[in-house]
Amino acid sequence: MKFNTIRLEVDDGIATITLDRPDQLNACTTEMKSEIIEAFDHTDASDAVRVVIMTGSGRAFCAGADLSGGGSRFDAPEETDGGVPRDGGGEMTLRIYDSTKPVIAAINGPAVGVGATITLPMDIRLASEGAKFAFPFTRRGIIPESCSSWFLPRLVGVERAVEWLYTGRLFTAAEAHEGGLISAVHPPETLLAAARSLAAEIIDNTAPVSVTLTRQLVWRMLGAAHPMDAHIAESRGMRAQGASSDAYEGVTAFLEKRPPRFTRKVTSDLPDIFPGWVRPGYR
Amino acid sequence: MKFNTIRLEVDDGIATITLDRPDQLNACTTEMKSEIIEAFDHTDASDAVRVVIMTGSGRAFCAGADLSGGGSRFDAPEETDGGVPRDGGGEMTLRIYDSTKPVIAAINGPAVGVGATITLPMDIRLASEGAKFAFPFTRRGIIPESCSSWFLPRLVGVERAVEWLYTGRLFTAAEAHEGGLISAVHPPETLLAAARSLAAEIIDNTAPVSVTLTRQLVWRMLGAAHPMDAHIAESRGMRAQGASSDAYEGVTAFLEKRPPRFTRKVTSDLPDIFPGWVRPGYR
Amino acid sequence: MKFNTIRLEVDDGIATITLDRPDQLNACTTEMKSEIIEAFDHTDASDAVRVVIMTGSGRAFCAGADLSGGGSRFDAPEETDGGVPRDGGGEMTLRIYDSTKPVIAAINGPAVGVGATITLPMDIRLASEGAKFAFPFTRRGIIPESCSSWFLPRLVGVERAVEWLYTGRLFTAAEAHEGGLISAVHPPETLLAAARSLAAEIIDNTAPVSVTLTRQLVWRMLGAAHPMDAHIAESRGMRAQGASSDAYEGVTAFLEKRPPRFTRKVTSDLPDIFPGWVRPGYR
Repeated sequence: MKFNTIRLEVDDGIATITLDRPDQLNACTTEMKSEIIEAFDHTDASDAVRVVIMTGSGRAFCAGADLSGGGSRFDAPEETDGGVPRDGGGEMTLRIYDSTKPVIAAINGPAVGVGATITLPMDIRLASEGAKFAFPFTRRGIIPESCSSWFLPRLVGVERAVEWLYTGRLFTAAEAHEGGLISAVHPPETLLAAARSLAAEIIDNTAPVSVTLTRQLVWRMLGAAHPMDAHIAESRGMRAQGASSDAYEGVTAFLEKRPPRFTRKVTSDLPDIFPGWVRPGYR
Repeated sequence: MKFNTIRLEVDDGIATITLDRPDQLNACTTEMKSEIIEAFDHTDASDAVRVVIMTGSGRAFCAGADLSGGGSRFDAPEETDGGVPRDGGGEMTLRIYDSTKPVIAAINGPAVGVGATITLPMDIRLASEGAKFAFPFTRRGIIPESCSSWFLPRLVGVERAVEWLYTGRLFTAAEAHEGGLISAVHPPETLLAAARSLAAEIIDNTAPVSVTLTRQLVWRMLGAAHPMDAHIAESRGMRAQGASSDAYEGVTAFLEKRPPRFTRKVTSDLPDIFPGWVRPGYR
Repeated sequence: MKFNTIRLEVDDGIATITLDRPDQLNACTTEMKSEIIEAFDHTDASDAVRVVIMTGSGRAFCAGADLSGGGSRFDAPEETDGGVPRDGGGEMTLRIYDSTKPVIAAINGPAVGVGATITLPMDIRLASEGAKFAFPFTRRGIIPESCSSWFLPRLVGVERAVEWLYTGRLFTAAEAHEGGLISAVHPPETLLAAARSLAAEIIDNTAPVSVTLTRQLVWRMLGAAHPMDAHIAESRGMRAQGASSDAYEGVTAFLEKRPPRFTRKVTSDLPDIFPGWVRPGYR
C-alpha cells in the first residue's frame, strides 16, 4: 500500500498505521482522512492483520485539523450526502468503529482536536508521558466532531467530558489517565513496545473470529436498551462459534494445557449474529 | 428578578442562583421549585449569562423536600398533566437538563434528597469539605425522584448508585468525590471562587453558541444508540457554526496568538442541529 | 427447597444462595442453571426475603462452565426457543436482572467465565482478597455470554471491558477493584459478614416496596434515551408509594427520630410504574 500522509506496515499480525506528516505535527488533511479510511479497509480485508496500532511520526501524535488554509478552514465540507455536508472526522471515526480488528492508540505526543477525537472509537489508548490532550472546539468557534459527543461521555463520564469540552483547555497525559481517557502512561521509548506487547497477548492466545465478534458485541450493545438484545446476539454467536472447530480446539487445548491453534478466519467464517441489524445510514 | 425563596444575581457573565431559605436549610417547597424553573427561563433568555452557578445560603445547600407538613408530604402531587400527577423534582431537573448554558453546582453544605438530586442534571459539581450527601428515599418509604434513576447511574455507575439508593445512608464529600459524584472538594471559603474561576475559564475563551451546542450534543447523545446519530447532528453543527464568523474568528485568533472575540449569540444564532428531534413530552 | 447443585438458606431477611459443587470448583452445569433460576423465583415470591447473597462453597466461587464433557461443550445448546438455541448463561442473568430483591455477590474465590459473568446483573460485588477473575471466552474459541457484552461495559467502561475480553487473561481482586468490577475487597474470613452487614443496613432501614421500585428504575433507565422516561415512571411511583402508609410512616419516623416500621409487601403492594412497558421477549 502506498500512501502520501500515512504509513501502513504489517508484521507479526500487527498493522501499524503511522500518521506521517511530522513537519506539520501530523495535522489532518482531507487526503489523510481518505488514506486512514483506506487503511482500515485494508486491515479488515486481511487475515494477516489481527490488531491495528495507530501512532504518529516525529514528536506529535496529531495536532488536529490542518489550519494552514486559515480562518475559513471549517467552511469547507469535504463531502456531501444528498446535499448535506458531512463532518470528515466523523467519517473516519465511524470507519474505525466498524473495524473488525481491535485498535490500539499509541499516543506518542500532542493529540489535539481531531487528533484526540480520532482515538475515541479505538479500543485501548496508551500514551507517552509527554503527550498532551485538548478538545479545543469551543475555543475555535466550532463544535465537537468525529462523533466525540457520542464517544467521549461514554469513555470518561459526562462531568469530565463537559469540563474538557466546555473549557477546551490543554491537559496532561497524567490527567487523561486519571480521568479514564487513556488506560496507561509509558515512557516515550517503551510506548510502542507496550502497545505491541498488548497486541501480542491477544494474537498469541485467542481465536480471531471470537475477538471480532467480541468487538462487535461490546460496541453495538452500548446502544441497546435491554440485556435481551445481547442475549439474542450472544445466543447466535455461541451457537455459530460454539459448534465450530475453534471452540473444540479452544476447550481441548485448555484441557490439554497447551497453546491453542485456531483456524477460522474473519474474512470467510464470521457469522452474522445480529438478526435484523441495519447499519445506520447518513440521513 | 424578584423571588421569595431564591436569589438570582448576574455579574461577569455568571448567573448565581442561591437557594435562600437558610433557616429551613433551604428545604425545597413548591414555590422554590417554580422559582428555580423561572430562574432558568431567565438565564436561557439572556445573552449576558454565559454560565449558571447554583449554591445555598447559610450552612446548607439544600436539606431536601420541606417536611414541615408532616407524614402526608408526598401525598400531594404539585401538578397534574392530563390527570396524571407529576413529580415536582423531575420538573426542575428536566428544566435544568434543557438549560442552554453550562450549570455548575457549588455544594456548600448538606445536600439531601431533592437537594442532592437537583444537582444531577448540572454539568459539574464542586463541593465544600463539610458537605454531606444522602439519597434517603427508601428510608422515607418513597422512591428516587427528579429523574435521578436516569441521571445517577450515568454519573457514578450502577454499583455505586444502587448502594447509595438502596441504603439511603449519609456520606461525606470525600466519598462523593471518590465515587465520581463531584469533581472536586474545596475548603468552604474558596468553594464559590473555584466555581467562578471555572466559569471564567469558559467565558473568557470560548464561543457562546459553540458551548451551547456542545451541551446539547453531549446530553442528547447519551440517549443515542449509535455514533451515526452524533455524526448527523455534528455534521449539521459543523456546517452551521463552521461557516460562521465565530469559526473564522476562532481560527484566526488562534493563528494570530491572541484572545478571540466571538460575536454570535445563543438567543438569535443557535442553529437547530437535531433534524426530526422532538422533545419528549409527558405521557 | 431441595437442590442438588446449590443451597438456599433464608435467615434475618437474607436469602443466601451457595453454589455447591465444591469438588468441581462449583463449575456450572445445566442443572445448576435451572436451580439458580428456580432459587430466584423463590426469593421473589417470598416477602421474608429482602436481599439475596450469592457465594460459593469451598475454595472457588465458580470456575466457569463444566468442561468435563470435553471439546464439544459449547456445541450443545441447552434450550431452544422457536428453534433458536439460547445461551444458558443469559437465561440466568436475565432472571437475576429481573430480581425484585437486591442481589449481592460475595465472591469467595476464582470467578471465571460464566462464574464471572453471572455476577454482572447483581447489584453489588464484594470479593475475597484471593479471588481471581477471567473472561476467557476468546481463548476458548467462543464469545462473551450471559449478556456480558451488555453488562460489562456499563459497569467498568468500554476500554477496561475490551481489554479483559480481548485478552481473556486472569486478573486479581485488586485489579478488579481498581477497574470498578467489584466495590470492595475483604479478607476471606470476613467476606460473608461484610455482605450480610450491607444487607442488614438495607433491611433495617428501608421500605421493601421502595427498594424494589428503586431496583427496577435504575436498571430499566439504563436503557432509556431521555430523562423524561424516568420522570414518567418516577411520577407514577411517587404517586403510588408517596400516598401510601409507607411514606407516611417513613416521614413520621424521621420527624420523630425513631426507626420506621414499614408494612407494605412486594408480593402484594408493588405498583406497576412503567406504563406500556413490555418485557422484551426472545426473538
